[in-house]
Amino acid sequence: MTWGRMVCRRGAAPAAVPCDRPSGVRVPSTGMASLTFRTAGESHGPELIALVEGVPAGLAPDVAFMNAELRRRQGGYGRGGRQRIETDEVTFLAGVRQGRTTGAPIAIRIMNRDSRLDDPGRTPPLHRPRPGHADLAGAIKWLTDDCRDALERASARETAARVAAGTVASCLLRALDIECFGFVRGLRDALTTVEVTAENWRSMLEARDRSEVYCPDASASQRIIDHIRRAKVDRDTVGGWCEVHVFNVPIGLGSCVQWDTKLDGRLARAVMSIQAFKAVEIGLGRAVGGLPGSQVHDPIHFDAASAAARHLGYVRPTNNAGGLEGGMTNGMPIVVTGTMKPISTLLRGMPSIDLRTGEAGHSDYERSDVCALPAASVVMQHAVAFEVAGAVLEKFGGDSMRELRAHLDATERMARALRG
Amino acid sequence: MTWGRMVCRRGAAPAAVPCDRPSGVRVPSTGMASLTFRTAGESHGPELIALVEGVPAGLAPDVAFMNAELRRRQGGYGRGGRQRIETDEVTFLAGVRQGRTTGAPIAIRIMNRDSRLDDPGRTPPLHRPRPGHADLAGAIKWLTDDCRDALERASARETAARVAAGTVASCLLRALDIECFGFVRGLRDALTTVEVTAENWRSMLEARDRSEVYCPDASASQRIIDHIRRAKVDRDTVGGWCEVHVFNVPIGLGSCVQWDTKLDGRLARAVMSIQAFKAVEIGLGRAVGGLPGSQVHDPIHFDAASAAARHLGYVRPTNNAGGLEGGMTNGMPIVVTGTMKPISTLLRGMPSIDLRTGEAGHSDYERSDVCALPAASVVMQHAVAFEVAGAVLEKFGGDSMRELRAHLDATERMARALRG
Amino acid sequence: MTWGRMVCRRGAAPAAVPCDRPSGVRVPSTGMASLTFRTAGESHGPELIALVEGVPAGLAPDVAFMNAELRRRQGGYGRGGRQRIETDEVTFLAGVRQGRTTGAPIAIRIMNRDSRLDDPGRTPPLHRPRPGHADLAGAIKWLTDDCRDALERASARETAARVAAGTVASCLLRALDIECFGFVRGLRDALTTVEVTAENWRSMLEARDRSEVYCPDASASQRIIDHIRRAKVDRDTVGGWCEVHVFNVPIGLGSCVQWDTKLDGRLARAVMSIQAFKAVEIGLGRAVGGLPGSQVHDPIHFDAASAAARHLGYVRPTNNAGGLEGGMTNGMPIVVTGTMKPISTLLRGMPSIDLRTGEAGHSDYERSDVCALPAASVVMQHAVAFEVAGAVLEKFGGDSMRELRAHLDATERMARALRG
Amino acid sequence: MTWGRMVCRRGAAPAAVPCDRPSGVRVPSTGMASLTFRTAGESHGPELIALVEGVPAGLAPDVAFMNAELRRRQGGYGRGGRQRIETDEVTFLAGVRQGRTTGAPIAIRIMNRDSRLDDPGRTPPLHRPRPGHADLAGAIKWLTDDCRDALERASARETAARVAAGTVASCLLRALDIECFGFVRGLRDALTTVEVTAENWRSMLEARDRSEVYCPDASASQRIIDHIRRAKVDRDTVGGWCEVHVFNVPIGLGSCVQWDTKLDGRLARAVMSIQAFKAVEIGLGRAVGGLPGSQVHDPIHFDAASAAARHLGYVRPTNNAGGLEGGMTNGMPIVVTGTMKPISTLLRGMPSIDLRTGEAGHSDYERSDVCALPAASVVMQHAVAFEVAGAVLEKFGGDSMRELRAHLDATERMARALRG
Repeated sequence: MTWGRMVCRRGAAPAAVPCDRPSGVRVPSTGMASLTFRTAGESHGPELIALVEGVPAGLAPDVAFMNAELRRRQGGYGRGGRQRIETDEVTFLAGVRQGRTTGAPIAIRIMNRDSRLDDPGRTPPLHRPRPGHADLAGAIKWLTDDCRDALERASARETAARVAAGTVASCLLRALDIECFGFVRGLRDALTTVEVTAENWRSMLEARDRSEVYCPDASASQRIIDHIRRAKVDRDTVGGWCEVHVFNVPIGLGSCVQWDTKLDGRLARAVMSIQAFKAVEIGLGRAVGGLPGSQVHDPIHFDAASAAARHLGYVRPTNNAGGLEGGMTNGMPIVVTGTMKPISTLLRGMPSIDLRTGEAGHSDYERSDVCALPAASVVMQHAVAFEVAGAVLEKFGGDSMRELRAHLDATERMARALRG
Repeated sequence: MTWGRMVCRRGAAPAAVPCDRPSGVRVPSTGMASLTFRTAGESHGPELIALVEGVPAGLAPDVAFMNAELRRRQGGYGRGGRQRIETDEVTFLAGVRQGRTTGAPIAIRIMNRDSRLDDPGRTPPLHRPRPGHADLAGAIKWLTDDCRDALERASARETAARVAAGTVASCLLRALDIECFGFVRGLRDALTTVEVTAENWRSMLEARDRSEVYCPDASASQRIIDHIRRAKVDRDTVGGWCEVHVFNVPIGLGSCVQWDTKLDGRLARAVMSIQAFKAVEIGLGRAVGGLPGSQVHDPIHFDAASAAARHLGYVRPTNNAGGLEGGMTNGMPIVVTGTMKPISTLLRGMPSIDLRTGEAGHSDYERSDVCALPAASVVMQHAVAFEVAGAVLEKFGGDSMRELRAHLDATERMARALRG
Repeated sequence: MTWGRMVCRRGAAPAAVPCDRPSGVRVPSTGMASLTFRTAGESHGPELIALVEGVPAGLAPDVAFMNAELRRRQGGYGRGGRQRIETDEVTFLAGVRQGRTTGAPIAIRIMNRDSRLDDPGRTPPLHRPRPGHADLAGAIKWLTDDCRDALERASARETAARVAAGTVASCLLRALDIECFGFVRGLRDALTTVEVTAENWRSMLEARDRSEVYCPDASASQRIIDHIRRAKVDRDTVGGWCEVHVFNVPIGLGSCVQWDTKLDGRLARAVMSIQAFKAVEIGLGRAVGGLPGSQVHDPIHFDAASAAARHLGYVRPTNNAGGLEGGMTNGMPIVVTGTMKPISTLLRGMPSIDLRTGEAGHSDYERSDVCALPAASVVMQHAVAFEVAGAVLEKFGGDSMRELRAHLDATERMARALRG
Repeated sequence: MTWGRMVCRRGAAPAAVPCDRPSGVRVPSTGMASLTFRTAGESHGPELIALVEGVPAGLAPDVAFMNAELRRRQGGYGRGGRQRIETDEVTFLAGVRQGRTTGAPIAIRIMNRDSRLDDPGRTPPLHRPRPGHADLAGAIKWLTDDCRDALERASARETAARVAAGTVASCLLRALDIECFGFVRGLRDALTTVEVTAENWRSMLEARDRSEVYCPDASASQRIIDHIRRAKVDRDTVGGWCEVHVFNVPIGLGSCVQWDTKLDGRLARAVMSIQAFKAVEIGLGRAVGGLPGSQVHDPIHFDAASAAARHLGYVRPTNNAGGLEGGMTNGMPIVVTGTMKPISTLLRGMPSIDLRTGEAGHSDYERSDVCALPAASVVMQHAVAFEVAGAVLEKFGGDSMRELRAHLDATERMARALRG
């Protein structure tokens, strides 16, 4: 059984559907945050800081995992020179003692080796804004003709801090057996057609980790690499699509009761706010506009045998909803897709103007990548994890991991007892 | 010059682009909220309440406009019986005196004629959750086998209150000559191909208002209606795509400095949190994954002659970014696309179970529509307006409209003076 | 053993202590909010609205209690003519079905009988601001020479909505056997000298309810009434002191980890934001500046026999800390004192100016009370209850009362097991 | 003219007023935050971090001033050994480039020389909670019998980071000619009787800076020192009272429209959340409960000659309201008093128990001070400054200091024009 078949499970595939998801889009059968993070730091400042508040005491963050994810964020075919300079790793400045969280705010440092912001000679003003970047909007916003300050903070270098914060949330989820899996779906016409399920995701993860572009489909990987190589030759850039799936999620995270308590809205904000993202989709996403309801909604079954899992036995043969109905988790995997635009800095430049005079010219150039899609899939995975972890804490409370687990267990017992 | 031609402005359209936007997607050349709203009220409760805080004093809300928008939300080809019962209109309970806002919290009431929640006979328990709805997730969340409470609040009836809140923001924007235009792009294979620009949007709006499905393209309208009619015959439902464009936006709303200050993220949350939305896109949206950077990023020009407008003369021949770069407005129109899934309630029902026993059966039925896409385009328009108005107030402050305007003028003068 | 003796337990009372708490100040041995409320409504608008979000499902609000508290807020010796017009009572517009909360936002209406804001003849402009009121600051803030809008919203009439919101929280606390008791301590030189303890508070409450000024000490009550009567004769006004005690509080509400998570800070904000309050004290409050540490800090004992209560056996012979150490509850009763200033509207007027000209004159007059201290004690009781209830929900989570109770029980079991 | 006389300006001083403010307390005739700060760091961790968001671009923080205030926080007669080890100073890690803020989040580091948290030998577990500290509540909250984690974060060492954050706000205020002045009012029976006014505060500041206990009255200073010395001999501790005055405040900061927008409530939270504070008062504070309205409310005059100042000519002969009416600034100086309890750690110990067994014993000992009141006055000054700066930014908006100033000027022009 493939998902491609499932989604249109009551007849022929709709001929005219303007559906750009790879055939087989459909994900197989599968809140508001008291947890918060802030980041600080410029692209070429001395260091990046991530501040995470609301993590219960007694979590042992897996530093090896965190650093591995930071290195994955630095990697992927298509990255530029900056990543050869940096070797990102986390240092806990606060909130972690002897390897365990204390309940206090967690401060994490990532050093910038390429730190030179206080040297005006090495970080000159930038007067010709680069299309696609924060340069123009930022300069006008801050009433300056120098885009430097805007670009230093808007830079995707910041996502290192965001990954640091997000991996803490990922560790929390893993301590509750909730797992997030992020990968590259593809770009241009190179798309993974294999589907990810609760059953196969661990082997997909291994496949992803063998791919230079974090794509679990070897053939698609190769085509993706080809596209990147060609863009490089053309002095052009590419973006693409990434996906995150979250498994073993408790039912009832998020809430339908108010617009800003809905978990789908919160995931959308988390993903769209990642540098260069222009679209967010849940489950089938955009494609649902092209299908009738009978092919979209996921039937509800009850399977007592599978009641050991967090879905409590409420299983669905399809997961077109991406695990979210009414802004709440329904026990199926959460599935989110993000679209990243091509890197805004083109080696060949773009038409721009001089902010001091209005005169036309080529945009200024700052070192950049040809493609950062694999890195973006890492950022997105942990951005999604952060929101899910926050929703868990909101529903279950708890100042320590022991307390959180006890609350979760107490609730699950009552939920199981609902059926007479 | 049309925008359809501009987007792939350096050659032939990319052959393999899995781009489902109507050809010519591209919108023509073109913060965080201190403003808040909350809604309360159930689908069959006595009334809906919208509470809006942060509106400056001295705004004269256009009640006729607000009520007209509420009626548009009730309309559109494909609606069911509820809308024949209700005639939504706003009553200000607080925050408005003698037709002007006072600076105090604004409370708005919309009566429910079909109010019967306190009569258990007319709002019976619902034990067989409807796929696609909040029913299952809500029942488990609140530890009950009756989906009634979840469905009463999760119902799209709530969007009437959201439109009420949003139209206040729209009135604020209009008082600053910022205009929002929302419409139905299409569904299935029926898509508007005409593009909306800063120049043509008012005539597009007239065309939209002549369409039974709020679509400015008469031919697309007819095909949309045909699809809805067919779905009705099939006892099925349909969703689709809507778009909102915002014109004459000041540069520099939102901010790149922190993940949750980015206006694109905030717009994504606002749109994704609308009942039944599964995707949000900014500008070209999902399609940017299929294009090279050279065809995506919008060149920057300066045109002193057009410097009278809010873009301050920084014009772009294309608007693939949808007016947002680095999470900030860049002076071009904001363009957001939302995807609505088909209505979750199918007349023919869906496979479900009885929550009391786990036994398989057909889902329960609650009165519903075949298509609510036109209504959704109204909700989305005002949801977007709300976020933009909030970003305006954050940047410019001001306790009264006079003060807000004075701040806006003072800032624009300085921004214009940036060029030597 | 009395508390009066305990506080200075190591010798003679400090002679020079500028301590104005009644001798025996000391209360006997005994967060952050996911719960929120907003109010809307003007003093002479059609109605007041309270919106409460975050209440778990399954709470049965005690409407008789809520209305009784609203009536208490209207009463007390010293009130003016308005209270004879109004008979405040709550109507649930949303969030409560068949007598139980649903988890949805709760909207509560209180009608204003003296509604006349839309009649300019009966709510004329007010150009001579009344000292002590919001009039002057509000007029300048909103750039007007008419204080009407400021005064209509700043009016203490709003506290009816705040009590409505607060009593919902009080009901939640009572469902968990946490009880709040508010009363008038006194005014001028008329002060209650009896102390409130976990043992005697219920009889104190009965005494309070027999007092026209909500003071549990009959002799102090009489002297308070005498003061109010004299003020009335003098066409003057009086304020005074009220106290709230909260019993049976779980240990560990609030948190020391960040400035805004501390429950003492949150209580201070809640109380100081009540109309006309100018001071907030926790436990001994201001008096601790006049005592040495050895007479202030509360020794820690362990009493296994009393381990059935929420203090888990960690008892203190004194409660000078007012139940809060490090911004967290320590198992002893929370004790908060608020100081209310005299009513700002004096029948005899105060020197003021005409905002249109700057010319000196007497302040304008709006109907008012001579003393509203008893009413303020009701407002304060429920304002404190609201913060405590929020802190409970933050620590324990839970979407329904059943879930909340299960979480609380699970945590208490673990806390009791801490001692080997 | 002294304020002691002013307050009871219509006759004899009230004989029976249970007023513990030093005679003549009363201050002479004289909002909500988009600005946020977070701190992280433990008492013996490697460093403290302050994160400040919302500061406009273009502010040049006065680092010498910031460091001087940090050193003041370390000083004052009565401090213990820790302050001899540390030499606190700020390092900007983010948000400041070449001496000016950029609009990005500002991260500030203060190093801990006495860093040893990762060495269990030098930071042993603490099983006998110290009365007055977070120890007991924190241990139970986090389900542990070791108070170490709670005490490390609850420690007043954190206030160094809070001062760092607050001094940034103070710099912002000074750039707008708004000035904050904090000092020690006194302790036990040693109280300053001189009053602070808009006219004399600069010379008072000089006097304060000559005092070892930050008290502008030399005679009171000496008596305060005597008390501290005696407490030290007794192996006891003392607290006391501090005050902060803010001059040249724009009218209309904060708002009366909702409970949490009131500036007095926000100031109360800011002050009460400082370690060891137990009371907050605005203006006359607690004393207003002992006076009739005619002696409390401040008459309104208009003085065109003084219209050059921020009070716009609306002057008051007294300032019993402490500059706040209806939760808004009224143009007079803001006056806030805080009460600090005696240091909780007594050299002689206090009765406590062993958390592992419940057995009675003496509390554990951690190095501490005899009196930290002077330090607390520094913390309080900048905590108040932070709230006021936030209220300024809310009313006036502005992404850069230039923009903020232009908005402020535009508003003041309109406010002055109110009088015909």
